[in-house]
Amino acid sequence: MRILVVGAAGDIGQVVCDELGQRHDLIRAGRSSGDVQVDLADAASVAAMYAKIGPPDAVISTTGDVHFAPVSQQTAQTFLDSLQQKVIGQVNLVLAGLDVVADGGSFTLTSGILDRVPIPMGSAAAMANGALGGFVRGAAGEMPRGLRINVVSPGLLEVSVPRYGAWFPGHVPVASDRVAQAFAFSVEGTATGQVITVD
Amino acid sequence: MRILVVGAAGDIGQVVCDELGQRHDLIRAGRSSGDVQVDLADAASVAAMYAKIGPPDAVISTTGDVHFAPVSQQTAQTFLDSLQQKVIGQVNLVLAGLDVVADGGSFTLTSGILDRVPIPMGSAAAMANGALGGFVRGAAGEMPRGLRINVVSPGLLEVSVPRYGAWFPGHVPVASDRVAQAFAFSVEGTATGQVITVD
Repeated sequence: MRILVVGAAGDIGQVVCDELGQRHDLIRAGRSSGDVQVDLADAASVAAMYAKIGPPDAVISTTGDVHFAPVSQQTAQTFLDSLQQKVIGQVNLVLAGLDVVADGGSFTLTSGILDRVPIPMGSAAAMANGALGGFVRGAAGEMPRGLRINVVSPGLLEVSVPRYGAWFPGHVPVASDRVAQAFAFSVEGTATGQVITVD
Repeated sequence: MRILVVGAAGDIGQVVCDELGQRHDLIRAGRSSGDVQVDLADAASVAAMYAKIGPPDAVISTTGDVHFAPVSQQTAQTFLDSLQQKVIGQVNLVLAGLDVVADGGSFTLTSGILDRVPIPMGSAAAMANGALGGFVRGAAGEMPRGLRINVVSPGLLEVSVPRYGAWFPGHVPVASDRVAQAFAFSVEGTATGQVITVD
Protein backbone atom coordinates (compact mmCIF):
# COMPACT_ATOMS: atom_id res chain seq x y z
CA MET A 1 0.00 0.00 0.00
CA ARG A 2 0.93 3.66 -0.38
CA ILE A 3 0.40 5.11 3.07
CA LEU A 4 0.44 8.81 3.94
CA VAL A 5 1.58 9.41 7.51
CA VAL A 6 0.94 12.95 8.73
CA GLY A 7 2.91 13.73 11.86
CA ALA A 8 5.56 11.17 10.93
CA ALA A 9 8.29 12.83 13.01
CA GLY A 10 6.38 12.66 16.31
CA ASP A 11 6.66 9.92 18.91
CA ILE A 12 3.59 8.06 17.62
CA GLY A 13 4.40 8.83 13.99
CA GLN A 14 7.85 7.25 14.29
CA VAL A 15 6.41 4.14 15.94
CA VAL A 16 3.88 3.81 13.14
CA CYS A 17 6.47 4.35 10.41
CA ASP A 18 8.85 1.79 11.94
CA GLU A 19 6.11 -0.86 11.82
CA LEU A 20 4.25 -0.12 8.59
CA GLY A 21 7.39 0.90 6.70
CA GLN A 22 8.53 -2.72 6.82
CA ARG A 23 5.89 -3.76 4.28
CA HIS A 24 4.38 -0.59 2.73
CA ASP A 25 5.48 2.51 0.84
CA LEU A 26 5.29 5.45 3.21
CA ILE A 27 4.86 9.12 2.39
CA ARG A 28 5.94 11.04 5.47
CA ALA A 29 4.29 14.42 6.04
CA GLY A 30 4.85 17.08 8.66
CA ARG A 31 4.59 20.78 9.28
CA SER A 32 8.26 21.34 8.57
CA SER A 33 9.79 17.91 7.93
CA GLY A 34 9.20 14.76 5.92
CA ASP A 35 8.60 14.09 2.22
CA VAL A 36 5.86 16.70 1.99
CA GLN A 37 4.84 19.63 4.19
CA VAL A 38 1.29 20.36 5.27
CA ASP A 39 -0.63 22.61 7.65
CA LEU A 40 -3.75 20.64 8.62
CA ALA A 41 -5.43 23.83 9.86
CA ASP A 42 -5.44 25.11 6.26
CA ALA A 43 -7.76 23.22 3.91
CA ALA A 44 -5.90 24.61 0.89
CA SER A 45 -2.61 23.25 2.23
CA VAL A 46 -4.21 19.82 2.70
CA ALA A 47 -5.62 19.84 -0.84
CA ALA A 48 -2.23 20.87 -2.22
CA MET A 49 -0.56 17.99 -0.39
CA TYR A 50 -2.98 15.42 -1.85
CA ALA A 51 -2.49 16.92 -5.33
CA LYS A 52 1.28 16.64 -4.95
CA ILE A 53 1.48 13.06 -3.67
CA GLY A 54 -1.35 11.48 -5.68
CA PRO A 55 -3.89 8.99 -4.31
CA PRO A 56 -2.77 7.07 -1.22
CA ASP A 57 -4.34 3.76 -0.17
CA ALA A 58 -4.37 4.76 3.46
CA VAL A 59 -4.06 7.98 5.42
CA ILE A 60 -2.75 8.10 8.98
CA SER A 61 -2.72 11.19 11.18
CA THR A 62 -0.85 11.34 14.47
CA THR A 63 -1.16 15.08 14.94
CA GLY A 64 -2.92 17.56 17.20
CA ASP A 65 -1.95 19.90 20.01
CA VAL A 66 -4.26 20.83 22.86
CA HIS A 67 -4.18 23.39 25.66
CA PHE A 68 -3.28 21.92 29.06
CA ALA A 69 -4.52 23.90 32.07
CA PRO A 70 -6.78 23.40 35.09
CA VAL A 71 -10.42 23.65 34.04
CA SER A 72 -10.79 26.85 36.08
CA GLN A 73 -8.07 28.45 33.95
CA GLN A 74 -9.47 27.28 30.64
CA THR A 75 -11.74 29.55 28.60
CA ALA A 76 -14.16 29.05 25.76
CA GLN A 77 -11.30 30.11 23.48
CA THR A 78 -8.74 27.63 24.84
CA PHE A 79 -11.25 24.80 24.43
CA LEU A 80 -12.10 25.99 20.93
CA ASP A 81 -8.42 26.31 20.01
CA SER A 82 -7.83 22.74 21.17
CA LEU A 83 -10.77 21.49 19.11
CA GLN A 84 -9.53 23.35 16.05
CA GLN A 85 -5.98 22.07 16.36
CA LYS A 86 -6.61 18.44 17.26
CA VAL A 87 -10.08 17.72 15.83
CA ILE A 88 -10.73 20.03 12.89
CA GLY A 89 -7.16 19.59 11.64
CA GLN A 90 -7.62 15.84 11.35
CA VAL A 91 -11.13 16.34 9.94
CA ASN A 92 -9.66 18.54 7.19
CA LEU A 93 -7.42 15.62 6.25
CA VAL A 94 -10.47 13.36 5.97
CA LEU A 95 -12.75 15.77 4.12
CA ALA A 96 -10.12 16.66 1.51
CA GLY A 97 -9.28 12.98 1.11
CA LEU A 98 -12.81 11.68 0.47
CA ASP A 99 -12.38 12.05 -3.31
CA VAL A 100 -8.66 11.26 -3.37
CA VAL A 101 -7.92 8.15 -1.32
CA ALA A 102 -8.09 4.94 -3.38
CA ASP A 103 -11.29 2.88 -3.38
CA GLY A 104 -11.48 0.73 -0.26
CA GLY A 105 -8.82 2.82 1.47
CA SER A 106 -8.82 4.07 5.02
CA PHE A 107 -8.29 6.98 7.36
CA THR A 108 -6.76 6.36 10.78
CA LEU A 109 -6.78 9.30 13.18
CA THR A 110 -5.24 9.59 16.65
CA SER A 111 -6.93 10.70 19.87
CA GLY A 112 -5.63 9.56 23.27
CA ILE A 113 -6.49 8.08 26.65
CA LEU A 114 -7.48 11.26 28.50
CA ASP A 115 -11.22 10.98 27.89
CA ARG A 116 -11.13 7.54 29.53
CA VAL A 117 -8.47 8.05 32.22
CA PRO A 118 -8.20 11.73 33.11
CA ILE A 119 -5.15 13.65 34.31
CA PRO A 120 -4.93 17.08 35.95
CA MET A 121 -5.10 19.87 33.36
CA GLY A 122 -6.39 17.46 30.70
CA SER A 123 -10.01 18.58 30.18
CA ALA A 124 -9.40 20.09 26.73
CA ALA A 125 -7.51 17.00 25.62
CA ALA A 126 -10.37 14.85 26.93
CA MET A 127 -12.87 16.97 25.01
CA ALA A 128 -10.89 16.70 21.77
CA ASN A 129 -10.40 12.95 22.16
CA GLY A 130 -14.11 12.43 22.76
CA ALA A 131 -14.94 14.55 19.72
CA LEU A 132 -12.69 12.42 17.51
CA GLY A 133 -14.29 9.22 18.78
CA GLY A 134 -17.76 10.59 18.11
CA PHE A 135 -16.74 11.76 14.66
CA VAL A 136 -15.42 8.42 13.41
CA ARG A 137 -18.39 6.53 14.84
CA GLY A 138 -20.81 9.01 13.29
CA ALA A 139 -19.07 9.32 9.92
CA ALA A 140 -18.05 5.72 9.17
CA GLY A 141 -21.41 4.69 7.72
CA GLU A 142 -21.40 7.56 5.20
CA MET A 143 -17.91 7.09 3.79
CA PRO A 144 -17.92 6.76 -0.03
CA ARG A 145 -16.32 4.02 -2.17
CA GLY A 146 -15.76 1.58 0.66
CA LEU A 147 -13.50 3.93 2.57
CA ARG A 148 -13.05 3.13 6.24
CA ILE A 149 -12.31 5.43 9.17
CA ASN A 150 -11.07 4.69 12.70
CA VAL A 151 -9.30 6.49 15.50
CA VAL A 152 -6.50 5.01 17.62
CA SER A 153 -6.68 6.08 21.26
CA PRO A 154 -3.38 5.20 22.92
CA GLY A 155 -2.23 5.64 26.48
CA LEU A 156 1.02 7.43 27.20
CA LEU A 157 3.73 5.77 25.10
CA GLU A 158 6.78 4.38 26.89
CA VAL A 159 8.96 6.44 24.55
CA SER A 160 7.13 9.61 25.63
CA VAL A 161 7.64 9.09 29.35
CA PRO A 162 10.82 11.20 29.61
CA ARG A 163 8.98 14.24 28.27
CA TYR A 164 5.38 13.75 29.45
CA GLY A 165 5.41 11.14 32.20
CA ALA A 166 5.20 13.63 35.05
CA TRP A 167 1.89 14.91 33.67
CA PHE A 168 0.33 11.43 33.81
CA PRO A 169 0.32 10.42 37.50
CA GLY A 170 -0.39 6.73 37.93
CA HIS A 171 -0.71 5.99 34.25
CA VAL A 172 0.98 2.79 33.11
CA PRO A 173 2.73 3.58 29.82
CA VAL A 174 2.02 1.42 26.79
CA ALA A 175 4.69 -0.29 24.71
CA SER A 176 5.40 1.15 21.29
CA ASP A 177 4.78 -2.12 19.48
CA ARG A 178 1.24 -2.34 20.88
CA VAL A 179 0.51 1.16 19.59
CA ALA A 180 1.98 0.26 16.22
CA GLN A 181 -0.26 -2.80 16.03
CA ALA A 182 -3.35 -0.66 16.65
CA PHE A 183 -2.54 1.33 13.53
CA ALA A 184 -1.84 -1.86 11.58
CA PHE A 185 -5.22 -3.21 12.75
CA SER A 186 -6.94 -0.14 11.33
CA VAL A 187 -4.95 0.13 8.08
CA GLU A 188 -4.61 -3.54 7.15
CA GLY A 189 -7.83 -4.89 8.68
CA THR A 190 -11.52 -4.37 7.96
CA ALA A 191 -12.67 -2.33 10.98
CA THR A 192 -14.48 0.95 10.54
CA GLY A 193 -16.15 3.40 12.89
CA GLN A 194 -14.06 2.15 15.79
CA VAL A 195 -12.16 3.75 18.63
CA ILE A 196 -9.17 1.41 18.88
CA THR A 197 -7.89 1.71 22.43
CA VAL A 198 -4.37 0.85 23.59
CA ASP A 199 -4.27 0.88 27.39
CA MET B 1 -32.79 22.99 45.73
CA ARG B 2 -32.74 26.00 43.43
CA ILE B 3 -32.20 24.54 39.98
CA LEU B 4 -31.42 26.55 36.87
CA VAL B 5 -32.71 24.83 33.72
CA VAL B 6 -31.36 26.31 30.51
CA GLY B 7 -33.38 25.23 27.51
CA ALA B 8 -36.46 24.72 29.65
CA ALA B 9 -38.88 25.14 26.75
CA GLY B 10 -37.41 22.33 24.65
CA ASP B 11 -38.60 18.73 24.56
CA ILE B 12 -35.99 17.55 27.05
CA GLY B 13 -36.23 20.73 29.10
CA GLN B 14 -39.96 20.27 29.63
CA VAL B 15 -39.50 16.65 30.66
CA VAL B 16 -36.85 17.69 33.17
CA CYS B 17 -38.96 20.55 34.56
CA ASP B 18 -42.04 18.33 34.94
CA GLU B 19 -40.04 15.89 37.07
CA LEU B 20 -37.75 18.12 39.11
CA GLY B 21 -40.32 20.89 39.50
CA GLN B 22 -42.32 18.57 41.74
CA ARG B 23 -39.79 18.92 44.54
CA HIS B 24 -37.42 21.79 43.69
CA ASP B 25 -37.54 25.50 42.87
CA LEU B 26 -36.85 25.91 39.17
CA ILE B 27 -35.47 28.90 37.34
CA ARG B 28 -36.33 28.41 33.67
CA ALA B 29 -33.96 29.98 31.14
CA GLY B 30 -34.10 30.19 27.37
CA ARG B 31 -32.98 32.28 24.45
CA SER B 32 -36.34 34.04 24.24
CA SER B 33 -38.60 32.46 26.88
CA GLY B 34 -38.59 31.49 30.53
CA ASP B 35 -37.83 33.38 33.73
CA VAL B 36 -34.53 34.67 32.41
CA GLN B 37 -33.03 34.96 28.93
CA VAL B 38 -29.53 33.88 27.99
CA ASP B 39 -27.37 33.36 24.93
CA LEU B 40 -24.94 30.58 25.85
CA ALA B 41 -22.66 31.54 22.95
CA ASP B 42 -21.99 34.86 24.70
CA ALA B 43 -19.97 34.55 27.93
CA ALA B 44 -21.14 38.03 29.02
CA SER B 45 -24.77 36.99 28.63
CA VAL B 46 -24.11 33.89 30.76
CA ALA B 47 -22.40 35.96 33.47
CA ALA B 48 -25.31 38.43 33.45
CA MET B 49 -27.78 35.58 33.91
CA TYR B 50 -25.93 34.20 36.94
CA ALA B 51 -25.71 37.71 38.41
CA LYS B 52 -29.43 38.19 37.97
CA ILE B 53 -30.63 34.89 39.43
CA GLY B 54 -28.11 34.44 42.24
CA PRO B 55 -26.40 31.17 43.19
CA PRO B 56 -28.24 28.02 42.11
CA ASP B 57 -27.65 24.63 43.74
CA ALA B 58 -27.74 22.87 40.41
CA VAL B 59 -27.43 23.86 36.77
CA ILE B 60 -29.00 21.86 33.95
CA SER B 61 -28.50 22.54 30.27
CA THR B 62 -30.57 20.86 27.58
CA THR B 63 -29.42 23.07 24.73
CA GLY B 64 -27.34 22.84 21.59
CA ASP B 65 -27.98 22.80 17.85
CA VAL B 66 -25.80 20.97 15.36
CA HIS B 67 -25.52 20.88 11.58
CA PHE B 68 -27.07 17.78 10.01
CA ALA B 69 -25.69 16.81 6.59
CA PRO B 70 -23.93 13.87 4.95
CA VAL B 71 -20.26 13.87 5.89
CA SER B 72 -19.30 14.62 2.27
CA GLN B 73 -21.33 17.83 2.48
CA GLN B 74 -19.93 18.92 5.84
CA THR B 75 -17.00 21.31 6.01
CA ALA B 76 -14.50 22.29 8.68
CA GLN B 77 -16.78 25.27 9.32
CA THR B 78 -20.00 23.26 9.77
CA PHE B 79 -18.22 20.95 12.22
CA LEU B 80 -16.77 23.94 14.05
CA ASP B 81 -20.16 25.68 14.15
CA SER B 82 -21.71 22.56 15.66
CA LEU B 83 -18.98 22.35 18.30
CA GLN B 84 -19.42 26.02 19.17
CA GLN B 85 -23.18 25.79 19.46
CA LYS B 86 -23.55 22.51 21.31
CA VAL B 87 -20.25 22.11 23.18
CA ILE B 88 -18.77 25.55 23.83
CA GLY B 89 -22.20 26.98 24.69
CA GLN B 90 -22.64 24.44 27.48
CA VAL B 91 -18.99 24.87 28.52
CA ASN B 92 -19.60 28.63 28.89
CA LEU B 93 -22.39 27.78 31.32
CA VAL B 94 -19.98 25.65 33.37
CA LEU B 95 -16.99 28.02 33.32
CA ALA B 96 -19.08 31.05 34.37
CA GLY B 97 -20.75 28.96 37.06
CA LEU B 98 -17.60 27.63 38.73
CA ASP B 99 -17.55 30.53 41.21
CA VAL B 100 -21.33 30.94 41.44
CA VAL B 101 -23.00 27.56 41.96
CA ALA B 102 -23.43 26.70 45.64
CA ASP B 103 -20.85 24.47 47.37
CA GLY B 104 -21.51 20.83 46.55
CA GLY B 105 -23.71 21.76 43.61
CA SER B 106 -23.76 20.23 40.17
CA PHE B 107 -23.78 20.81 36.45
CA THR B 108 -25.74 18.45 34.21
CA LEU B 109 -25.23 18.87 30.48
CA THR B 110 -26.99 17.11 27.60
CA SER B 111 -25.41 15.30 24.66
CA GLY B 112 -27.28 12.52 22.82
CA ILE B 113 -27.12 8.99 21.43
CA LEU B 114 -25.58 9.71 18.03
CA ASP B 115 -21.98 9.01 19.01
CA ARG B 116 -23.08 5.53 20.13
CA VAL B 117 -25.77 4.72 17.56
CA PRO B 118 -25.22 6.75 14.40
CA ILE B 119 -27.80 8.04 11.92
CA PRO B 120 -27.33 9.36 8.40
CA MET B 121 -26.24 13.01 8.43
CA GLY B 122 -25.33 12.81 12.11
CA SER B 123 -21.53 13.05 12.10
CA ALA B 124 -21.38 16.58 13.53
CA ALA B 125 -23.86 15.64 16.27
CA ALA B 126 -21.76 12.56 17.03
CA MET B 127 -18.64 14.71 17.24
CA ALA B 128 -20.30 17.20 19.61
CA ASN B 129 -21.73 14.44 21.81
CA GLY B 130 -18.35 12.78 22.08
CA ALA B 131 -16.73 16.08 22.95
CA LEU B 132 -19.19 16.66 25.80
CA GLY B 133 -18.57 13.18 27.17
CA GLY B 134 -14.82 13.73 27.08
CA PHE B 135 -15.17 17.12 28.71
CA VAL B 136 -17.14 15.97 31.76
CA ARG B 137 -14.88 12.95 32.26
CA GLY B 138 -11.79 15.13 31.96
CA ALA B 139 -13.05 18.06 34.05
CA ALA B 140 -14.84 16.31 36.93
CA GLY B 141 -11.73 15.76 39.02
CA GLU B 142 -10.80 19.43 38.92
CA MET B 143 -14.14 20.93 39.93
CA PRO B 144 -13.82 23.27 42.95
CA ARG B 145 -15.83 23.21 46.22
CA GLY B 146 -17.26 19.73 45.73
CA LEU B 147 -19.05 20.64 42.52
CA ARG B 148 -20.04 17.70 40.33
CA ILE B 149 -20.47 17.51 36.56
CA ASN B 150 -22.19 14.92 34.36
CA VAL B 151 -23.72 14.72 30.92
CA VAL B 152 -26.99 12.96 30.10
CA SER B 153 -26.91 11.19 26.74
CA PRO B 154 -30.48 10.27 25.81
CA GLY B 155 -31.82 8.45 22.80
CA LEU B 156 -34.59 10.01 20.72
CA LEU B 157 -37.41 10.93 23.11
CA GLU B 158 -40.88 9.52 22.45
CA VAL B 159 -42.24 13.06 22.56
CA SER B 160 -39.80 14.10 19.82
CA VAL B 161 -40.78 11.34 17.39
CA PRO B 162 -43.35 13.41 15.46
CA ARG B 163 -40.70 15.98 14.58
CA TYR B 164 -37.47 13.98 14.38
CA GLY B 165 -38.41 10.30 14.15
CA ALA B 166 -37.86 10.06 10.38
CA TRP B 167 -34.21 11.07 10.87
CA PHE B 168 -33.59 8.16 13.27
CA PRO B 169 -34.17 4.97 11.25
CA GLY B 170 -34.45 1.92 13.48
CA HIS B 171 -33.96 3.82 16.72
CA VAL B 172 -36.29 2.77 19.53
CA PRO B 173 -37.44 5.98 21.25
CA VAL B 174 -37.00 6.35 24.99
CA ALA B 175 -39.80 7.21 27.41
CA SER B 176 -39.78 10.71 28.86
CA ASP B 177 -39.82 9.51 32.46
CA ARG B 178 -36.61 7.53 31.92
CA VAL B 179 -34.89 10.66 30.57
CA ALA B 180 -36.21 12.69 33.51
CA GLN B 181 -34.78 10.13 35.94
CA ALA B 182 -31.33 10.43 34.34
CA PHE B 183 -31.32 14.13 35.18
CA ALA B 184 -32.59 13.40 38.70
CA PHE B 185 -29.78 10.84 39.09
CA SER B 186 -27.23 13.51 38.21
CA VAL B 187 -28.74 16.38 40.22
CA GLU B 188 -29.89 14.53 43.35
CA GLY B 189 -27.27 11.78 43.46
CA THR B 190 -23.51 11.71 43.98
CA ALA B 191 -22.20 10.81 40.52
CA THR B 192 -19.60 12.93 38.80
CA GLY B 193 -17.63 12.67 35.58
CA GLN B 194 -20.24 10.34 34.11
CA VAL B 195 -21.94 10.01 30.75
CA ILE B 196 -25.42 8.95 31.87
CA THR B 197 -26.92 7.07 28.94
CA VAL B 198 -30.64 6.54 28.34
CA ASP B 199 -31.11 4.02 25.52
